[in-house]
Amino acid sequence: MSEHQWPYRLLAPGPVPVPPPVLQAMSAKVLHHRTPEFEKILREVWVGLKFVFATQQSVQIIAGTGSAAMEAAVCNLLSPGDQVLAVVSGKFGERWAEQCERYSIKVHRLDVPWGDPVKLEDLEAALKSHRAVKAVFSQVCETSTATVHPIQKMSQVIAKNSQALFCVDAITAVGCMPLPMDDWGLDCVVAGSQKAFMIPTGLSFIAFSERAWKVQAQSRLPKYYLDIGAERAANAKGETHFSTPTPLVVGLNLVLKQMQSRGLNLVIERCQALAKATREAGAELGLQTYSSSPSSSVTALKTPTGTNSAQLRDWLEKERNITIMGGQDSLKGKIIRVGHMGYILNDDMTALVRALGEGLKSEGVQKAVAVLEKHLNSVEPLFT
Amino acid sequence: MSEHQWPYRLLAPGPVPVPPPVLQAMSAKVLHHRTPEFEKILREVWVGLKFVFATQQSVQIIAGTGSAAMEAAVCNLLSPGDQVLAVVSGKFGERWAEQCERYSIKVHRLDVPWGDPVKLEDLEAALKSHRAVKAVFSQVCETSTATVHPIQKMSQVIAKNSQALFCVDAITAVGCMPLPMDDWGLDCVVAGSQKAFMIPTGLSFIAFSERAWKVQAQSRLPKYYLDIGAERAANAKGETHFSTPTPLVVGLNLVLKQMQSRGLNLVIERCQALAKATREAGAELGLQTYSSSPSSSVTALKTPTGTNSAQLRDWLEKERNITIMGGQDSLKGKIIRVGHMGYILNDDMTALVRALGEGLKSEGVQKAVAVLEKHLNSVEPLFT
Repeated sequence: MSEHQWPYRLLAPGPVPVPPPVLQAMSAKVLHHRTPEFEKILREVWVGLKFVFATQQSVQIIAGTGSAAMEAAVCNLLSPGDQVLAVVSGKFGERWAEQCERYSIKVHRLDVPWGDPVKLEDLEAALKSHRAVKAVFSQVCETSTATVHPIQKMSQVIAKNSQALFCVDAITAVGCMPLPMDDWGLDCVVAGSQKAFMIPTGLSFIAFSERAWKVQAQSRLPKYYLDIGAERAANAKGETHFSTPTPLVVGLNLVLKQMQSRGLNLVIERCQALAKATREAGAELGLQTYSSSPSSSVTALKTPTGTNSAQLRDWLEKERNITIMGGQDSLKGKIIRVGHMGYILNDDMTALVRALGEGLKSEGVQKAVAVLEKHLNSVEPLFT
Repeated sequence: MSEHQWPYRLLAPGPVPVPPPVLQAMSAKVLHHRTPEFEKILREVWVGLKFVFATQQSVQIIAGTGSAAMEAAVCNLLSPGDQVLAVVSGKFGERWAEQCERYSIKVHRLDVPWGDPVKLEDLEAALKSHRAVKAVFSQVCETSTATVHPIQKMSQVIAKNSQALFCVDAITAVGCMPLPMDDWGLDCVVAGSQKAFMIPTGLSFIAFSERAWKVQAQSRLPKYYLDIGAERAANAKGETHFSTPTPLVVGLNLVLKQMQSRGLNLVIERCQALAKATREAGAELGLQTYSSSPSSSVTALKTPTGTNSAQLRDWLEKERNITIMGGQDSLKGKIIRVGHMGYILNDDMTALVRALGEGLKSEGVQKAVAVLEKHLNSVEPLFT
């Protein structure tokens, strides 16, 4: 590791900073995945995941990233000849549509302007135009634009107008905003370890409703590594189907226990406070919020005309040892994205705002820092 | 973690013990996968992987286990209607055949008695019977029986009798035995992080020959997460296609550097010495080697008539805090399997042999320990 005069601060929309006790537990020793000690941990993790997903269904763990779990939704719930409706409002919407197309699924796109939420009347019209769709795919939060869609209402519109399964990419949503899977009638929820679960990248999670499990049993797209039915069958025996990244599961267990003991609301409120603080402090620095439906997991801020956001991002990385993200695809150079998940301390946010002020030569730094303090002192992080 | 009066010793065929400096580096801080600091590490890792695979080709990293890389070989190198020949000599041979079948590939099985190596004349006959096969799949070491196949000679037989690609599962072979990919004319080599690479489970590796890359470009089986061509294209820009388990890559870099600095031979010789010591010490305890072509990465020992190997394994786990593996499928209860990869110290082996002697009430313990010392003192571990 190279040394830097400034301490490292990871403020990206994932991976996120891992709480020190979790890092410590993960490196204590390497457990084998087929031992009684690990089975005990796995069983605790399965309970914790159900708690965070707010579901009575089992949640399956995949050794892979969020994109693997997104693909698992496709190849487990669809069959050759099926049609789907895909909300496309950014890079990850594009990805899910492309994954379907790779499996020769006919995709009807519901294109939504980047930065805007789905309009319910557009969703209803699309469902009426394409009555054969077997599933609707949508991000909860489109990470590339930091925009949240009205998932609960979308679920109602889908249930009212079709028989389609509702599959949501909740990679930057589970644990960052209310998303009760069963209550909202979601049929498939996908998440990833390096987001609100605050452990490193490497695990993803997928849960199916009872209705989705029935479809899964009939699905005829090819799958083996991503066969969630086989994984569930192994889980029923207290095992995983494949080898398991045991340190990640050990770390996850610690985080899930803390979430259960301190309450999911605390974690969500912390994200909300960080997001609000970032939007308001950003405004003081001349950085306006990009999205018309901003997320509590990640905030996108528009850089002023004449300021290339990629250069600002690189300056922060090189000169201040702070990692945030820029815009992707058509938003390259136009926005910066700041994450609110994981072990983020108030001090990290103050350092970011001061560095942004410097990089932008803004005069609003003092006001911005004052705004931060107002919001952040109200909610403490999950691990203190 | 529960406390045990005996120190924990992981002696399974993977995951394996991680060297302390590697564990430390992995938990130092969480890097983002899209930063200059991580790109530098990635580029070093790509060089190191080529060194260990002994290839001029690039080696692609998958965030997933060895089974994901095995499936990547299938969906990247085959197309609908293709036929393959699959060597089936144990659980992992079964798995590769099953993965092919899930993608509707016609599989011709070359069944080999468990514990025996492939006979070259049988391979030749199979190739002559099935001239249309596009690829031959085989384990290098079938981990479930600890048996090594004659890969170099098999490669020659395949080249002489067919146009088929030769794909090898080298998950418990790369870094444990000589396997120069280019010299031996291997078209696809698959490996996993939690074996000779001595880091935790979570990454797998796959390399294609030039000939295989041409086939990959034409392959028409569905894939997205396992699209190795897209991964290679991202790598050419210094990036990974998807999010990356950065701590594993940081740990891997340290191991690969040590392998390059101290030489791959040292690692291979250490495995060979551990394997020889285990076979000979086992014999002193009344445990005969199961395989007629034993591996240097893992040893399978037959438990005496009347001794259930699963019970012996459980006793070691519970009473001595030592993890080894038992037999799988038809070998359940009949063999124990001891791994030789990773950060295994001489002391670990002595403790295992003493514990086995106790569990078996064997009188050969002193002789067995003496045998160990003779072999193990000759080669030191990669990290000392």
